[in-house]
Amino acid sequence: MDTLIKPYKDPFFDYLSQKKIIKSPTRLYEPIAYILQLGGKRLRPILALMTCDLFGKDFKKAYDAALAIEVFHNFTLIHDDIMDSASIRRGKTTVHKKWDVNTGILSGDAMMIMAYRFLESYEPVLFKKLMPIFSKTAIEVCEGQQLDIDFETRNDVTITEYIQMITLKTSVLIGASMKIGSIIANASKQDADYIYNFGLNLGIAFQLQDDYLDTFGDTSTFGKKIGGDILENKKTFLYLSAIEKATYNDKKHLQKLYSTNPKNEDKINEVTAIFKKYNIEKCTQNEIEKYTQKAFSVLEKTSLGISEKQIFVEFGKKLMERLV
Amino acid sequence: MDTLIKPYKDPFFDYLSQKKIIKSPTRLYEPIAYILQLGGKRLRPILALMTCDLFGKDFKKAYDAALAIEVFHNFTLIHDDIMDSASIRRGKTTVHKKWDVNTGILSGDAMMIMAYRFLESYEPVLFKKLMPIFSKTAIEVCEGQQLDIDFETRNDVTITEYIQMITLKTSVLIGASMKIGSIIANASKQDADYIYNFGLNLGIAFQLQDDYLDTFGDTSTFGKKIGGDILENKKTFLYLSAIEKATYNDKKHLQKLYSTNPKNEDKINEVTAIFKKYNIEKCTQNEIEKYTQKAFSVLEKTSLGISEKQIFVEFGKKLMERLV
Repeated sequence: MDTLIKPYKDPFFDYLSQKKIIKSPTRLYEPIAYILQLGGKRLRPILALMTCDLFGKDFKKAYDAALAIEVFHNFTLIHDDIMDSASIRRGKTTVHKKWDVNTGILSGDAMMIMAYRFLESYEPVLFKKLMPIFSKTAIEVCEGQQLDIDFETRNDVTITEYIQMITLKTSVLIGASMKIGSIIANASKQDADYIYNFGLNLGIAFQLQDDYLDTFGDTSTFGKKIGGDILENKKTFLYLSAIEKATYNDKKHLQKLYSTNPKNEDKINEVTAIFKKYNIEKCTQNEIEKYTQKAFSVLEKTSLGISEKQIFVEFGKKLMERLV
Repeated sequence: MDTLIKPYKDPFFDYLSQKKIIKSPTRLYEPIAYILQLGGKRLRPILALMTCDLFGKDFKKAYDAALAIEVFHNFTLIHDDIMDSASIRRGKTTVHKKWDVNTGILSGDAMMIMAYRFLESYEPVLFKKLMPIFSKTAIEVCEGQQLDIDFETRNDVTITEYIQMITLKTSVLIGASMKIGSIIANASKQDADYIYNFGLNLGIAFQLQDDYLDTFGDTSTFGKKIGGDILENKKTFLYLSAIEKATYNDKKHLQKLYSTNPKNEDKINEVTAIFKKYNIEKCTQNEIEKYTQKAFSVLEKTSLGISEKQIFVEFGKKLMERLV
């Protein structure tokens, strides 16, 4: 594991492990314990702890907020997996497949409330600062999920709308994790907003990178099967950019390929060829670079010292290289 | 409408109507607006307002808490209706039938977060007092729903367990509505606990009354078809009491009747006859009376004036007579 995140990841994992999740009725709480121990990068809680630390406060003070964020994130995974009829999450059976849909719905609900409860350890004034950020972000994540669902049946999605969707679905929670960490460290309102925007833009870059790697990455670094998005007809940044640039005929061809469901390499190769023809590889890299630079330049505006900024930059770079 | 609740119900309805619920993405927010305008008794928000008022504070101060409670309650209805595959709610199509299950899940999630957000209008110290009550209650409601699901497939449910289930699923939110109203009115901790227990016991009595009326009521007062619980093999207080009292043969017969699904009057009549044979009518009335009296005696302990106590007693009685 990377040395940058190890100081936060291990203690956070210990803190999480100490929490007694399972109680009666067990059918409600077992799925919660199950998904929480499936692992994952723990990116969001780590960012909350790291941000609290780099803004000068003992990161242990951010434990409960980090936990709230991680529990909330995992709640969204349970409900999203139901909506997507997904069978596998982090290499293991999804909650609604291991138990059933009703269990997934109800355990997810309980999990969201649990997330809120972890914030109760903060004193009133801090609590009152954290809660609106948490709730605002939570509802934005729901809006992002709704847009994602809406886009499945729409044929006129623009790149701007797509960026808005991934911002809501993924990036706001990354931004909020950092903002919450900074507020616990008593950062100024301005610093809190800057670090939020750092996280937000990094989150967008990260998601675009995910789109990129799904087609142009290699399995060893990416960890998922290449071409998955193409087989699922996902209207990613790559697809939408190609649609925008392609000639009439290529556009029609691409749309036709995305209206079929063959699960084979031919479709992946054909789509990838169109992407390559229109230089989508480079165009996506440019977009990733754009958001990464946006992130770094807003980071620059914070009142953080040079070495703290340097750590965030290093983290950002490693994240984009999928090394953390 | 009853004169007791009219002073709260009308203004609350106006307050609710003024809230702009629908925004983008509309598919997320339209179902929320839909269920919120379906009506219902608005029992919980009215109790929050009434309690705030009777504890001496302008009940308008409790508007947002009342809204949070009502929105939370309606969120549970959306998700419960999915879990129960219910098609009709308050005489109208349920959300997941009018739209689809995924919409029901996601709009429900957003609704729960919205409920939390309405509490944000309170200043930090009060906010920090209200939130844990709200969250504790919310998770208890989930636990109650889980127990209800568990009981469907269990044949050894005791009356004590049943009371615990309805307490969590229904009564805690009634108790919490009143407790929250009292805290907004700056009631003492002791008064807040007493009024919570008043609401809790009244809630249990109310739910038992619901069980009772479903078999022994008449359609004009009850508003639902008589015998519904029997047709659905619901293990209500009536059924569990009969199982406890019946001879071996009658018990087996009752269990057999509850393992079939004919939708006819014969089953209702046969089960009702067994209930009557074991005096379940009287036995349920006694239990309702027991919890009603419990409610009234804990109300007596509060520091409220005689006339305020009298209003709560009157409300309790009218509620039990289904006149409010």
